[in-house]
Amino acid sequence: MATELKGLTKRSENYSKWYNELVVNAELAEQAPVRGCMVIKPYGYAIWEKIQRILDDKFKETGHQNAYFPLLIPKSYLSREAEHVEGFAKECAVVTHYRLKNAEDGSGVVVDPSAKLEEELIIRPTSETIIWSTYKNWIKSYRDLPILCNQWANVMRWEMRPRLFLRTAEFLWQEGHTAHATREEAEAEARRMQEVYADFAEKYMALPVIRGVKSETERFAGALDTYTIESMTQDGKALQCGTSHFLGQNFAKAFGVQFVDRENKLDYVWATSWGVSTRLMGALIMAHSDDNGLVLPPKLAPVQVVIVPIYKTTDELSAISDKVKSIVEGLKARGISVKYDDADNKRPGFKFADYEVKGIPVRLVLGMRDLQNGTLELMRRDTLQKETLSLEGIDAKIETLLDDIQNNIFNKALKYREERTVEVDSYEEFKTQIENGRFVLAHWDGTAETEAKIKEETKATIRCLPFGLDETPGKCVCTGAPSARRVLFARSY
Amino acid sequence: MATELKGLTKRSENYSKWYNELVVNAELAEQAPVRGCMVIKPYGYAIWEKIQRILDDKFKETGHQNAYFPLLIPKSYLSREAEHVEGFAKECAVVTHYRLKNAEDGSGVVVDPSAKLEEELIIRPTSETIIWSTYKNWIKSYRDLPILCNQWANVMRWEMRPRLFLRTAEFLWQEGHTAHATREEAEAEARRMQEVYADFAEKYMALPVIRGVKSETERFAGALDTYTIESMTQDGKALQCGTSHFLGQNFAKAFGVQFVDRENKLDYVWATSWGVSTRLMGALIMAHSDDNGLVLPPKLAPVQVVIVPIYKTTDELSAISDKVKSIVEGLKARGISVKYDDADNKRPGFKFADYEVKGIPVRLVLGMRDLQNGTLELMRRDTLQKETLSLEGIDAKIETLLDDIQNNIFNKALKYREERTVEVDSYEEFKTQIENGRFVLAHWDGTAETEAKIKEETKATIRCLPFGLDETPGKCVCTGAPSARRVLFARSY
Repeated sequence: MATELKGLTKRSENYSKWYNELVVNAELAEQAPVRGCMVIKPYGYAIWEKIQRILDDKFKETGHQNAYFPLLIPKSYLSREAEHVEGFAKECAVVTHYRLKNAEDGSGVVVDPSAKLEEELIIRPTSETIIWSTYKNWIKSYRDLPILCNQWANVMRWEMRPRLFLRTAEFLWQEGHTAHATREEAEAEARRMQEVYADFAEKYMALPVIRGVKSETERFAGALDTYTIESMTQDGKALQCGTSHFLGQNFAKAFGVQFVDRENKLDYVWATSWGVSTRLMGALIMAHSDDNGLVLPPKLAPVQVVIVPIYKTTDELSAISDKVKSIVEGLKARGISVKYDDADNKRPGFKFADYEVKGIPVRLVLGMRDLQNGTLELMRRDTLQKETLSLEGIDAKIETLLDDIQNNIFNKALKYREERTVEVDSYEEFKTQIENGRFVLAHWDGTAETEAKIKEETKATIRCLPFGLDETPGKCVCTGAPSARRVLFARSY
Repeated sequence: MATELKGLTKRSENYSKWYNELVVNAELAEQAPVRGCMVIKPYGYAIWEKIQRILDDKFKETGHQNAYFPLLIPKSYLSREAEHVEGFAKECAVVTHYRLKNAEDGSGVVVDPSAKLEEELIIRPTSETIIWSTYKNWIKSYRDLPILCNQWANVMRWEMRPRLFLRTAEFLWQEGHTAHATREEAEAEARRMQEVYADFAEKYMALPVIRGVKSETERFAGALDTYTIESMTQDGKALQCGTSHFLGQNFAKAFGVQFVDRENKLDYVWATSWGVSTRLMGALIMAHSDDNGLVLPPKLAPVQVVIVPIYKTTDELSAISDKVKSIVEGLKARGISVKYDDADNKRPGFKFADYEVKGIPVRLVLGMRDLQNGTLELMRRDTLQKETLSLEGIDAKIETLLDDIQNNIFNKALKYREERTVEVDSYEEFKTQIENGRFVLAHWDGTAETEAKIKEETKATIRCLPFGLDETPGKCVCTGAPSARRVLFARSY
């Protein structure tokens, strides 16, 4: 997969162009021939696999099991939950036929008109409807509860303005769907999974996130509450990284899922659903990367350390390779993933640029002088700082360094967000700060009308009612009407 | 997920019914509301996850990387490779529209006629076409080769006679797609992956398989050779468990994928593809299970050991639980997965039946008398034999026993197949043996006509030209014409 290593557009010049070029140059993904869809390339997929594995372990630690539900949903199911269909399920791929046949003129294949489905099928945009129609048969009594299922799957929403990873027609995700005997248990589950996501984002993605709850307007269609984690991109926008929905009894009622409780009374089941997707890849890229390319937190880097030899002759290469062998062993023994790139068909300069754009956290270079001196040259990707180090105890030093890098990336992103988060009390300043790419904490009168007006006039939406924020009442920044608390406004991806 | 634990239909009465009941009673899968599709339930999915994890490790050990390609394929792509479309791509789900809208009469949603796609999209029945259209952009030079990609994905083929796991409209699988500079390398890759599958089937699934190559009639559409592994079910049919295709330059030519070789000449790229699917679950069930339910090889059992306490009072339970704690720790320290089922809302008899139908390899029971005697009762699922054992060194004994069970299941299946494999030299006996559910090794004149005639008259197909079989020439069992070698005939799933 040959990559032309052209330099990237600078973020300051054109952030959007920089992002698109980075995704392609780092060989993370590319546009597919099908409109709005992407090919996730091996390097991008390796990062996604790390995300999957870590999250999957966390889901299982919290008692969840994986299962698999069908890709196709009967059209009528989407109409069952009124709010769900109203707010959600329109832009989707519709299967109408189940057979092709050879064209009579020999030009290829055509749809066989005799193979028309009685009821059209929809490629799942999300699976609440098909899953709750299934849960109906699984649940009779409180003894069958809770059901704590997750599935890793592809879903499809016909996006009009697709962007690699951030908004694609098809994307990969996980969707948890749980069923509970009580409201309290379901609400606790929705909050627990929000915290699992937040913890993952901060500890593994090095991505500081704001935890909060969505306004009614921004809620998932069919939910009573949507809990969210929101990150900040380097162009000062909010990116919704994951959501966890408390669905109340809406889907249980829509699909008639009742259970006999401990008092032998019939009641509807309480539900949650929660998901994160390949969109996380977009959040990761946008939070940390620089004009040289991707910057990866070590905990998600498929290769944490790359070693490049500098040599003229094969004898020199062989001497260096001998020394590298013990370094590789030392690093592997500490659970560090390492790649020794002794390929002779690429020059070191090409390799350096390639690993830089791919965001490998640590690069080691060994030449003949290093061999004589018992040293190597180390570059850390996050700061691009180089230093010459003794080979003595190098594996322990690198282990510590990887932790440092992980923390540094997180702290840098946190500082960035904190510097760009402001409290605002006038609508003029609100507009200015939003225009400047700030997270704005402002009072809001709590009405959907004001929310819509602000969105119309500033393109900013309420990202969430953040948790842990001072909840002193005040006056709405837009209307002056009484406000219960400040909420978070920003433009968003 | 309450299950009524009715007994299963006996295999000898109705093998097909037995299978369907087992899949449902063991909570492996169930019919979805969408025709021909299935829901894979958590217990079934846990087995599939074990299969995935082990295979994925093997793919990576052999140098492959995962990637992800789009679900939807433009219809015109299917026509590009002539044999591929001829033999393959007709029965598939066709997406014609990308939007729904509210029905004017308020009755729900209808397809929006204004959102018709210019070109219809097909839900992938397999991904050669979309992948080779992508590889075109990845490959310029021999330096870009080989490409060794795999994807874990869902695919869809509109099956007219669906069966849970064995043949469903949607199924889960992995598909490897590799690109090579030489014919030799591609052929070696196709054979290597066949052997990876065979090794996995035998070592992990405890499933003896026959390795061979398909006749031209039975080849994958577009392949020059299809390598296969075939297992035997208890009703004496063959089940194709996995295939690996040498595709020659067919797809490279269809999609114009050329590369500059070491001599600076342009040539078409050589290809393979290979896959196994959730059909393996069907093979697993059909090979080992008995009239009591599923029998799982320990290496694929999500729970290898279950412990059930027998008690009257909570004091008794607590005394037993104390003792069980150390057994659980001892087993876990040996990497054995163990479940202690102290649920008080189900009687032991119910638990016994449930774990039997689910195929947990080892069941331990502890009662008060055991506590006094320092013993427990052990039952192995494969033979249903019970014995009373001292608690002394029980973890080591169980570790050995799990290996024994794994080997015993394999040997039993192997013996079963060997007893039911016969060499046949007359067409009358051929018919009788096929009718009796035998694998028949017979001479064949090598023509598609004779193959078709035999299939028509006996419902037996050539499963493969087995490797490692005596290749003495002879006379065709059907026509008497010269035959180069015996081949394997059987009826199949």
